Amino acid sequence: MFEIDRSSKMLLVDQIRSAIITRIESLQWVQGGRLPSVRALSKQLGVSIFTVTSAYEDLVAQHIIESRPGAGYFVLPVKQAGALKELDSLIPPSSLHAGFLYRALDPSQYDLPISSGYLPPAWLADAVPPSVTGRLIRNTLSCSVPAPAAGSQALRSVIARKLRELHINASSSQIVVTSGATHAFSLIRKVMLKPGDYLLVEDPSYLLLQLKLIKDRDFNIITVPRLNDGPDLEAMEAMVLKYRPKLFLTQTLIHNPTGGSTSPANGYKILSLADKYDFHIVEDDIFGSLSSQQTLRLASLDGFNRTFYISGFSKVLSPALRLGYAAVPPAFVERLVEQKMYNLLCGSAIDETIVTYTLESGRYQHHLDALSLRVMQERAKAREWLGKAGVIFDGHSADGIFLWGRLAEQMDIRRLIEQAHDARIFLAPGSLFSNSRHYDQHIRFNVTHCNDAEFRRFIHAHVAVDSAPRIAAHSA
Amino acid sequence: MFEIDRSSKMLLVDQIRSAIITRIESLQWVQGGRLPSVRALSKQLGVSIFTVTSAYEDLVAQHIIESRPGAGYFVLPVKQAGALKELDSLIPPSSLHAGFLYRALDPSQYDLPISSGYLPPAWLADAVPPSVTGRLIRNTLSCSVPAPAAGSQALRSVIARKLRELHINASSSQIVVTSGATHAFSLIRKVMLKPGDYLLVEDPSYLLLQLKLIKDRDFNIITVPRLNDGPDLEAMEAMVLKYRPKLFLTQTLIHNPTGGSTSPANGYKILSLADKYDFHIVEDDIFGSLSSQQTLRLASLDGFNRTFYISGFSKVLSPALRLGYAAVPPAFVERLVEQKMYNLLCGSAIDETIVTYTLESGRYQHHLDALSLRVMQERAKAREWLGKAGVIFDGHSADGIFLWGRLAEQMDIRRLIEQAHDARIFLAPGSLFSNSRHYDQHIRFNVTHCNDAEFRRFIHAHVAVDSAPRIAAHSA
Repeated sequence: MFEIDRSSKMLLVDQIRSAIITRIESLQWVQGGRLPSVRALSKQLGVSIFTVTSAYEDLVAQHIIESRPGAGYFVLPVKQAGALKELDSLIPPSSLHAGFLYRALDPSQYDLPISSGYLPPAWLADAVPPSVTGRLIRNTLSCSVPAPAAGSQALRSVIARKLRELHINASSSQIVVTSGATHAFSLIRKVMLKPGDYLLVEDPSYLLLQLKLIKDRDFNIITVPRLNDGPDLEAMEAMVLKYRPKLFLTQTLIHNPTGGSTSPANGYKILSLADKYDFHIVEDDIFGSLSSQQTLRLASLDGFNRTFYISGFSKVLSPALRLGYAAVPPAFVERLVEQKMYNLLCGSAIDETIVTYTLESGRYQHHLDALSLRVMQERAKAREWLGKAGVIFDGHSADGIFLWGRLAEQMDIRRLIEQAHDARIFLAPGSLFSNSRHYDQHIRFNVTHCNDAEFRRFIHAHVAVDSAPRIAAHSA
Repeated sequence: MFEIDRSSKMLLVDQIRSAIITRIESLQWVQGGRLPSVRALSKQLGVSIFTVTSAYEDLVAQHIIESRPGAGYFVLPVKQAGALKELDSLIPPSSLHAGFLYRALDPSQYDLPISSGYLPPAWLADAVPPSVTGRLIRNTLSCSVPAPAAGSQALRSVIARKLRELHINASSSQIVVTSGATHAFSLIRKVMLKPGDYLLVEDPSYLLLQLKLIKDRDFNIITVPRLNDGPDLEAMEAMVLKYRPKLFLTQTLIHNPTGGSTSPANGYKILSLADKYDFHIVEDDIFGSLSSQQTLRLASLDGFNRTFYISGFSKVLSPALRLGYAAVPPAFVERLVEQKMYNLLCGSAIDETIVTYTLESGRYQHHLDALSLRVMQERAKAREWLGKAGVIFDGHSADGIFLWGRLAEQMDIRRLIEQAHDARIFLAPGSLFSNSRHYDQHIRFNVTHCNDAEFRRFIHAHVAVDSAPRIAAHSA
């Protein structure tokens, strides 16, 4: 239940009241639920009947709970209880992108987060060993010193070592620890882009969703189509010639949402274009560690001449952590750290300590190896049954946690997504990841959530039958 | 020492080598230190003599350690060991503000962080009970779900309740959890200021230091003198009339660096000016909870009509956490959360869990009460001996962890700060906190670090004698 703290100056009755309000507001205790009996709670907490009754009666007076004579005390509906509108209701439905991203980031909003970017908690449970973590945290907190603005030296060193295993030669002084890969990119954007500058992004790309969020940003976004083996180089050169972007943002390995990887030949050409037209590259490698096929990153070809390499641990280690980093050309380290200090001073020493230990202990690699294998297996399974059920996968080889599937043209995808939403299933349409209309019939599936019996039933009920004839025609 | 992980795919010899490099790069093992003997380490780790010898010889080949026949293996100087330039050396001395802030944020850079903004770790040790924290973290990590972008509902609820105790009526839906108070302010800036807009700040102010960091920011900073009882209202109205700022940033209670608090009458006038000239106020209340004198915040007067209230837990709870929040007018919640998602998606669920528990349990209030008392005692002590030693405190009543002291005019403050630096004592000159030249002879003292015998000796040796005659003249 909850504890009371006798060393606190807060009155016992207030402590009890406050603990109950927290449980109700955080939805641990839901509307209509019966509270513990006065007698049971007073016994459990070792306080008088009078104290518990006073707390309950205060809550009744505040319309947070009600007393039903002979039956006990019950939680009132949250609205009536004076709790206020939740953020989700504050974000108007018109604000599609923010609302989508907000929900996508909060898995508790859905029973089946089919299009989520996160992995199931159970798949990550082995990564950070509980017994060790408790000890680490105790030490960190009792030291109570902040993390240096660039990140702790121990963490920067172990990240540099891990990168060398990927044939990326960054020194620890080139590593800037951030609050996740997204944060790394937002700091780089601030350092590299002046008002009016152009940022080149792939289409589709999960980053378009994030960039669409802010309408009043002071730089311009242009796109290049993402093909099977990387960006469309011809289109890219044309865009670069026309707009002279300062930055190109790309995911070399396991591109989100398509799951494709940039071929070495394509990667080499990207670097040549960067040299020829003098732009920098941000290589987002958030999922690369799960790649079972190709492993060449632009950062290892380029050696931090023009490449900012960003990655993080929230996806493959734990979303409860917010920790990522940028490995950058030496000339930009200082400005990036300045930006970080300007933005939030420094990161969480607690998160840094946990990740440092995990990387140092060798557990991380072990965890990744098992995870990659599991993703590959679930991926094959999901692709097979989704394909049979009528989802079309355009024939490129892909990797990682995402399947980028297309529904037959006669399918009403908006309706499907609404039906899914009503069934507490989270599906993200392709239009969120694209500025073109080419992906309106696409869905991003996360294979680690897909192979669920309930979702199979949903897809078979809402996709398979209607679209079967069309699929047959298509594959003929 | 360190552990090896037999389930890892990493070779034992590599694990040993890697663990040693980490210890050397993180300065746990320092130059000249003797490594454990091959025999001792092999026994301790349960690996063969051959494995340890291989690891050591690899490190010798890499010039990270050296072998002295008959004596053992020793850590080479880090430079020689191929470790790379540290960030601190990457920041040129000319870049005073960034370098200062970087060092100020990393207490390990000095033995005596006299001008630091942080409290001694030992003073915070009781706040977050180690036994409980370990359990909390284990649960959070094993759940492995990200924090919602606005912060967890439980944390937002308990913050709203804490604010009501301060007579600040914010609902939980008005609370946006951030990665510290600085982060809260940076998000508010992005939401509220367009390019060319004016931000009004007090002079002196710690925020000037932070704002000076970024030369290419796209808004303008103007200042108003901070007097004993708050901003100089006449000067403020003149500045407001002339520049029409969109935001006014202020610290009502325990202003940093002066330690003064805004009087209720002054606070009321600030709000009247905001109404008259249509600007918003950011009230930074990072130290307010330590106030022993006055407790009226603008947010409680204003009721979130024009006030953005920001605070955090890194200072008074633990700098190892990065956790703060903004309580804002309802109309701005959505845009603030959007900015947060754009900046870093969401915060650390681990940090949020720890703070939620601490606030809920009543420990927080207990901790704050003890802390305030201790700060008050140390403050009186520090003010007394520093005053006798020749530091001048202009006669306003002040509160909190900072003393804003002035040295007699003939003192060469630059030299004093350099002497302090050489003695590994961190002193921050007034010029860092001001755009005027009025505070060139000031130093910000943190009373929680001041009453140290070594620092007394330093001050007596370098300040007292020279300035004594001058002080006498001054007080005459």
